Amino acid sequence: MSEFDLIRRLTAGARTRRDDVVVGPGDDGAVMAVPPGHELVLTTDALVSGRHFPADTPPADIGWKSLAVNLSDLAAMGAEPAWITVALVLPEHDLDWLTGFMAGFAPLLEASGAALVGGDLTRGPLTVSIQAAGLVPAGRALRRDGARPGDRIAVTGTLGDAAAGLADWLAARHPVDEHDRFLRDRLTRPAPRLTAGRWLRDRASAAVDVSDGLAADLTHLLAASGVGGWIDPAALPASAALRHRLADADRAAAQLSGGDDYELCVCLPAAVADVAMTECPDGLTVVGRVEAEAGLRLAGPDGSMQAWQGTGYDHFPTGG
Amino acid sequence: MSEFDLIRRLTAGARTRRDDVVVGPGDDGAVMAVPPGHELVLTTDALVSGRHFPADTPPADIGWKSLAVNLSDLAAMGAEPAWITVALVLPEHDLDWLTGFMAGFAPLLEASGAALVGGDLTRGPLTVSIQAAGLVPAGRALRRDGARPGDRIAVTGTLGDAAAGLADWLAARHPVDEHDRFLRDRLTRPAPRLTAGRWLRDRASAAVDVSDGLAADLTHLLAASGVGGWIDPAALPASAALRHRLADADRAAAQLSGGDDYELCVCLPAAVADVAMTECPDGLTVVGRVEAEAGLRLAGPDGSMQAWQGTGYDHFPTGG
Repeated sequence: MSEFDLIRRLTAGARTRRDDVVVGPGDDGAVMAVPPGHELVLTTDALVSGRHFPADTPPADIGWKSLAVNLSDLAAMGAEPAWITVALVLPEHDLDWLTGFMAGFAPLLEASGAALVGGDLTRGPLTVSIQAAGLVPAGRALRRDGARPGDRIAVTGTLGDAAAGLADWLAARHPVDEHDRFLRDRLTRPAPRLTAGRWLRDRASAAVDVSDGLAADLTHLLAASGVGGWIDPAALPASAALRHRLADADRAAAQLSGGDDYELCVCLPAAVADVAMTECPDGLTVVGRVEAEAGLRLAGPDGSMQAWQGTGYDHFPTGG
Repeated sequence: MSEFDLIRRLTAGARTRRDDVVVGPGDDGAVMAVPPGHELVLTTDALVSGRHFPADTPPADIGWKSLAVNLSDLAAMGAEPAWITVALVLPEHDLDWLTGFMAGFAPLLEASGAALVGGDLTRGPLTVSIQAAGLVPAGRALRRDGARPGDRIAVTGTLGDAAAGLADWLAARHPVDEHDRFLRDRLTRPAPRLTAGRWLRDRASAAVDVSDGLAADLTHLLAASGVGGWIDPAALPASAALRHRLADADRAAAQLSGGDDYELCVCLPAAVADVAMTECPDGLTVVGRVEAEAGLRLAGPDGSMQAWQGTGYDHFPTGG
């Protein structure tokens, strides 16, 4: 089976058509019609074996997650997923692996409404590079530079689950109960908050997706907006599974600087925060507030404030 | 220096703005306005160290070439380059390497008119995945499925130079004269045929970029169009450097199945072939003809026809 046959197999397992796809996979490039009144959103993320997922991760989980992390970026922009390209580097020609990959990739693609419009397949160390194109009504993309003092800081879903799931995986602690399975699923099958992102698009002043840990990603948002703020670690939304697994101090650490949450962190004008808390899809929890003073601070139980000193997950953590 | 600082360094060295870029690098996604009356063209190609370029290739050559191969796909669609994203996997944090990469990438980006709108940087085995977005007037993309019996088959520029350049490289034969340097440059600094692609957009019936060898890529074009055809190996355009380096038989082999040419192979209605030969930018040479009978044939000097049996460059050449 040649590279071309494999690429055909790769694309055959997934939706490759939408009404706006003029030329699908198989040509030098795909051709798409952008609907009037919309802008295009582009994002790319590569996942490397042993770095973004354990080397023994089943291919279906890799397929799901590599798409999910890119869709999460579109969610943070308030964009509707439209067209996906995949550049896959595989150590060997392995049809079973590709079939497995598509078994995870295709259902999420289908659910997102996007189409796979292009692929590239190469032999080499396992790396999945995905590029996602989305659509937003013109001028209405959710950016990270719009936060203003007084805004509430809020997050969707729950935080820290994937960090606990990864710790289990690395300790070879296999899931035995529903809490374990929930944490594992949150690591391997993150659900990009696309519906919440679109709902928040017309309400939030700024948004970022939480992939490197809340504190690190929020710090970037605040810096981009030219503001600062504080969050209350005790207010961070935690799943029942995480509460069951970790004591308070460890839980707060996982929630503040664990990676792979793929929730959205948004800033909301005070006037809309209350209604957003009850109506936003996927749930929304207010965890802090934007202030004029730069930097991120953690609120203590006694009302004290401490500058956040930690770091998020960083592929190049130190060095000159 | 953190991943974020490195990404900033990566994007700071290149043009990141165009009038149609609403949100540039630094947010979860870039936002662009697609001009009315245009369609979007997307393509992706990954380059892996030791596979697409020798491991000792200078980073500037990697930067140039990884962008060039993607722009070549846009050229084959007749598209205007617009927005580029780069997912870079690097073995180690190496600012010198990144600076070198940008020294090759940025000038070609600038010349192409495109902007770098997004990047991702990860530690791992050296891989450069680029996704290129281009624009074409609606309904006018150059596809590979429009060739018709009687059309002339033509190629831009010259073929086989990069294959000879690679053979020199692998033999550790360092360039000593202008011919050597020309062949080396054709390998490391291919010039995507963007101007020719746009010129051919309204004249050619089908097009493909020649990356895996003329015979293999033309075979794909003919199959996509539901036709066949023949080419005359003696008619293939060869550079003075290639003629100087290789005798006739070796030269024909390099021109038919050597990779990395990044020329365009197009089919042209007979009525426009003559004027295209004299007016197409980058030069255009008629090398064969489309026929109804499927498959690719090679014309012998005596007028005989032989089915092409070879294969192009394929990352997964054999196996079950």
